[in-house]
Amino acid sequence: MINIIDGGVTAPKGFKAAGLRAGIREGKTNKDMAMIYSESVADAAGVFTKNVVKAAPVLWDKKVVEEQKKAQAVVVNSGIANACTGDEGYQDAADTAEHAGEVLNVNPAQVLVASTGVIGFTLPMDAVKSGVEKLEKALADNRQSAVDAATAIMTTDTHKKEIALTFDLGGVTATMGAMCKGSGMIHPNMGTMLGFITTDASIEQNLLDKALKELVEDTFNMVSVDGDTSTNDTVVVLANGMAGNERVTVEGADYEAFKEALNTVMTYLAKQIAGDGEGATRLFEVTVSGAPDKATAKVLAKSIVTSSLTKCAIYGKDANWGRILCAMGYSGADFDPAKVDISVASSEGEIKLVENGKAANFDEELATKILSPEVVTAKADIKSGNESATAWGCDLTYDYVKINADYRS
Amino acid sequence: MINIIDGGVTAPKGFKAAGLRAGIREGKTNKDMAMIYSESVADAAGVFTKNVVKAAPVLWDKKVVEEQKKAQAVVVNSGIANACTGDEGYQDAADTAEHAGEVLNVNPAQVLVASTGVIGFTLPMDAVKSGVEKLEKALADNRQSAVDAATAIMTTDTHKKEIALTFDLGGVTATMGAMCKGSGMIHPNMGTMLGFITTDASIEQNLLDKALKELVEDTFNMVSVDGDTSTNDTVVVLANGMAGNERVTVEGADYEAFKEALNTVMTYLAKQIAGDGEGATRLFEVTVSGAPDKATAKVLAKSIVTSSLTKCAIYGKDANWGRILCAMGYSGADFDPAKVDISVASSEGEIKLVENGKAANFDEELATKILSPEVVTAKADIKSGNESATAWGCDLTYDYVKINADYRS
Repeated sequence: MINIIDGGVTAPKGFKAAGLRAGIREGKTNKDMAMIYSESVADAAGVFTKNVVKAAPVLWDKKVVEEQKKAQAVVVNSGIANACTGDEGYQDAADTAEHAGEVLNVNPAQVLVASTGVIGFTLPMDAVKSGVEKLEKALADNRQSAVDAATAIMTTDTHKKEIALTFDLGGVTATMGAMCKGSGMIHPNMGTMLGFITTDASIEQNLLDKALKELVEDTFNMVSVDGDTSTNDTVVVLANGMAGNERVTVEGADYEAFKEALNTVMTYLAKQIAGDGEGATRLFEVTVSGAPDKATAKVLAKSIVTSSLTKCAIYGKDANWGRILCAMGYSGADFDPAKVDISVASSEGEIKLVENGKAANFDEELATKILSPEVVTAKADIKSGNESATAWGCDLTYDYVKINADYRS
Repeated sequence: MINIIDGGVTAPKGFKAAGLRAGIREGKTNKDMAMIYSESVADAAGVFTKNVVKAAPVLWDKKVVEEQKKAQAVVVNSGIANACTGDEGYQDAADTAEHAGEVLNVNPAQVLVASTGVIGFTLPMDAVKSGVEKLEKALADNRQSAVDAATAIMTTDTHKKEIALTFDLGGVTATMGAMCKGSGMIHPNMGTMLGFITTDASIEQNLLDKALKELVEDTFNMVSVDGDTSTNDTVVVLANGMAGNERVTVEGADYEAFKEALNTVMTYLAKQIAGDGEGATRLFEVTVSGAPDKATAKVLAKSIVTSSLTKCAIYGKDANWGRILCAMGYSGADFDPAKVDISVASSEGEIKLVENGKAANFDEELATKILSPEVVTAKADIKSGNESATAWGCDLTYDYVKINADYRS
C-alpha cells in the first residue's frame, strides 16, 4: 500500500536537508545551494548522463556510486554547471566533497556533488565552501528544510518539484522522499535534470542499483525526447535503512514493493518535469499500444511526444492527427500505417481520430473540448502485438507556435 | 563557368510554367496550383521522403521516375497534402496526372504530381481538374510564369525560392532553373520540402539520378535536421536536352560540370529553406572539420544546427559555446571533447570561443558583434582527421525562446 504524503527528501527517517543562497553567481538573489544529509551511511545508486561531454560533478559521482556504493551527503549548486572546466573543474568537485566531508564529519569519498547552470565556468570555490558551512548549520529534518533544498536546485523551473510517500516493506512502514529539477522543453535533456531520492528502506546496493536503472528507462528517459542528455544529468537514490525493515536482499515480494514505491516517485517526478516545460500550459501524455515489442512502442511514443508540430497542435487544441501519424512515420520504427488507430483523451472524454490509418468521422468541436484540460493524452494503437509504452511532454506555446497552431485552421 | 542569372524554372530552353488560384481550400485567396511543362519529353530523376507514411503523390511519382524515368510535366498543389488518404488519395493523384496528360497531350504516366498542405484531407478534384485546365492555358516561358509557379507552391514560406544559372557543358551553354518551398523550422522536414529543377542539358537518366541522389545528401538533407522527412517531401529534376550539348553518358568532365551546376542550385535552395525558418531572423551555418570520416562530421554538424538551445543562443547573439559542445556530446558521434576548438564567424570577423575543449579567453562584446549579421557560421574542429561537413539551419526567435536566450545573461 502506497500512501502519498506531504513532504520531500526529509520525509524518511534520518534525513536532513537545507537550501540557501551561497552567492554562486553575482547579481542574483535566488537560493543556489542545497544539502542532503543522512544520519547513517546510506546505500547509494546513481544514473548519469550518456553525453560524451560529462560535467566534473558527474565524473565525481560516478566514482562514488561505482567504487564506494555508499553515500552520506549530497551537495548541490545551481547557477554554474561546472562542465567543460577540465582538471580544475574536477578538482573543484573533489574539493567541495572534501570540505563537506570535514564539516559534516563524514567520509568525503561518500559525498555526492551535483551542479546545474551555465556550462564553461568554474565554481567560485570561496562561495561554495562557505555555502557548505552555512548549509551544515541549517540542516534540519523538518518540512521547510526540504522545501528550501528543492527550491535551491531550480534553474528555469517554474516551481519546485517534490514528492514523499510511505509504503509497506516486510511488515514495517518505510518512507521515500524526493526532489528534482528540470523542465521538459524542446530538447529537455539539454536542460539539466537532477533528481535526488531518499528512503529509509534497507536494501542491498545491487538491488537498489538495478531498480533505479530499470525504472529510469520507463520514467525520466520517456520525458519528451530520446537518449540525449545534458552534460550534468544525474539521478541518485540514498537508502539508509533506518525504517527497520528486514534488509531486502533478493528479488522477492519486498523488492517488488520497494520497486513499486520507487516507480511511483520517479513517474511522478518525470511527469512534473514534462509538465513544467518552458512556457508550457499542459502536460501531454502519449501511449502507444499494440506494438510487437516494448522498444517499438517506446520509439513511437517518444517520436510523437517530441514532435514540435504535434506539440503545437496540442497547444492549439487542434485534433491535427496527421502530425501524429507523420511523427510515427519518421520515428524509425517499423509499422503498418494502414493499421493505425489514434485517439485523444482527457478528463473531458475520449474520441477516435484515426481508424486504420484514415480519418475517423469525428466531431471537431468535441475533439477540441477533449484537448482543452491541463492533462491531455494521445493514444495510438498499431494493432501488431501486446506491448505498450508511455511518454510525457508538454505543449509548445508562445507566439512562435502560432504559425503552426493556425496552419490548419 | 557558372553564371547565376535572374530566373526560375522557365529559364532553360523548352520549359514553360504557370501558377494560379484553383480554389483548393475554401476561404483562402492565395495561388494554390502550379504547372511545369517541357516541350520535349525530359529525363527525370527524383528523391522522395523516407517517412513510412508516404503521401499519395509521392507513391505516384516514385512509379514515374522508377518505371518511366522520364517526365514531361509537373502539377503541384498547395493547401492539401493528399497524405493519409488511402486508395482514394492515390486515385486522385493518378486522375490528376491523367487529366493533365489529356489537356497537355502528353503521356499521363510521365506527368509528376506533388502536394503540400494539410494531412488527412482528400483533394477537391473538381477544383484540381479545372485548375489543370486553367494552368495549361496560362503556360508561358517568361519570367513572370516562373514567379507565379514558385509563389503558388508556398505554404508557410515567407517568400518564394527560385534560382537559375547557366553553365558550360561540352562547349555549349546549358541552363538550369529551380523553385522550391519549405521552411527550416524546428523539425523542418515535417514541413514539406518540395523542389523542382529544370535543365536543358542532355544527360543519361542514370547519371541524372546518381548526381541528384548524391547531392541531396550534402544539401537538402543537411538542412537543420536528420533523415526525418514529411509525408510529402519531393525533389525532382527534369533534363530535356534542348541545350544541344553532346549527351552526357559517362562520368567525365561534362558530368562533373553538370554536377557542379546542380550542386550550386541545390545548395542555394537548401540555404534558402534554412534561412526561411518560421520566424527566423538569420541563417545559421555550421561546419565541422577535422573529422576522421564524413559521416562523423555530418552527425556533429547536424546535431549542432538542430539544437534548440544553440539556435536560441544564436538568436540572443550569445556566444554560449557550452550548448554547441553539449549538442556535439549527445550527437552519438565519437570524439574527444578535450581536443575540440570552436569558433564563430560572420561578415564581422571570426573569433575562437573554445580551445581544446575549454573556454578560450575571448571578448564577449566582439563575439556578440560577430553573431549579429544575417548569416552566422559556427565552426568546430575536432582535430582527428581531414573530413568536414556543413549543415544549415536558422535561429529560434519569438517570445518562447526568451527564457533560453536570457538564461545565461
